[in-house]
Amino acid sequence: MSRLEKKMTRSPEAEDAPLFEQRPGERRLDIDPSGIRPDAGLVYIGRIRSPWIRRDTCPKNMAAARDKGGGGTVEVDPAYRAGLEGLDGYSHVVLLTWLQHAPRDLIVQKPRHAETATGTFALRSPARPNPIGLHVVRLLNVDLSAGTLDLEAIDVLDGTPLIDIKPYFASTDAPAAPQDGT
Amino acid sequence: MSRLEKKMTRSPEAEDAPLFEQRPGERRLDIDPSGIRPDAGLVYIGRIRSPWIRRDTCPKNMAAARDKGGGGTVEVDPAYRAGLEGLDGYSHVVLLTWLQHAPRDLIVQKPRHAETATGTFALRSPARPNPIGLHVVRLLNVDLSAGTLDLEAIDVLDGTPLIDIKPYFASTDAPAAPQDGT
Repeated sequence: MSRLEKKMTRSPEAEDAPLFEQRPGERRLDIDPSGIRPDAGLVYIGRIRSPWIRRDTCPKNMAAARDKGGGGTVEVDPAYRAGLEGLDGYSHVVLLTWLQHAPRDLIVQKPRHAETATGTFALRSPARPNPIGLHVVRLLNVDLSAGTLDLEAIDVLDGTPLIDIKPYFASTDAPAAPQDGT
Repeated sequence: MSRLEKKMTRSPEAEDAPLFEQRPGERRLDIDPSGIRPDAGLVYIGRIRSPWIRRDTCPKNMAAARDKGGGGTVEVDPAYRAGLEGLDGYSHVVLLTWLQHAPRDLIVQKPRHAETATGTFALRSPARPNPIGLHVVRLLNVDLSAGTLDLEAIDVLDGTPLIDIKPYFASTDAPAAPQDGT
């Protein structure tokens, strides 16, 4: 499939959602990271099950997901399930996911409701050179033998590939007095 | 290079550090993720400059790195620098790095000072199927034209590849009352 065809292809769950469209002030990379030889390779270790099957109703971040509720489940593939041992003692984990439908060449972008365009690394948009999703989630239950984690809430489409799970530690992961740029 | 040879090769900065050794209770995957066809490909967007050139003196987590100080710098490659626009308003960002020297097939592991072995996903060890480092760091300065971010502290070896930068938002990234399993 050519790069153009690839961009024109709509993912099944996005039937009713708009394509990622170009907006004023946006800039693309000269070379699309999805089209070049990668520097490193990821393996999928499982997937996220969520209530969200359409991009337009999927919560855009974890704060919105917690407000909306609806739960979610992490399914870890059999080969990787032994890695969950000990996780049941934690209240929160960090999930890393692969946001496979996002364009990778958008380096300055204008969020739908923003007035101006902003650099990709100053946004949490899924569109980025390496479309990795970062989600701090609350664990409701861990089933080691089934390889599942029940979540309070999650902000990704059903079926999103999982690439890592890490325990959350406030001592390392929560800065003392963060200030955002808004 | 065969898988065995690859495992026997020591990285330049690890000359004085022990190899990742097998410890009691540890378990390896049947298939090493570094040796199979990847599900997705990463591109390096830059690298970390840090004071740490030996594994035995490199802080093991961000809490230790903040205690130790010493600063650090993110260098973003020219092609990706436009993505930094707007980042200077933030006090903290999340860096994702690729911990390229870590073994990827260790699924249950015993940290050096731990009494028992624990699942990889309940640890922050660099050894994991996808060795992605997650670092919440305080920004001291952003130089958009040079593509550099000066950091208060960082817990990775000098030269570690950078794969993503995200703004940190307490509203989405800091859970209300996290409890860890220790």
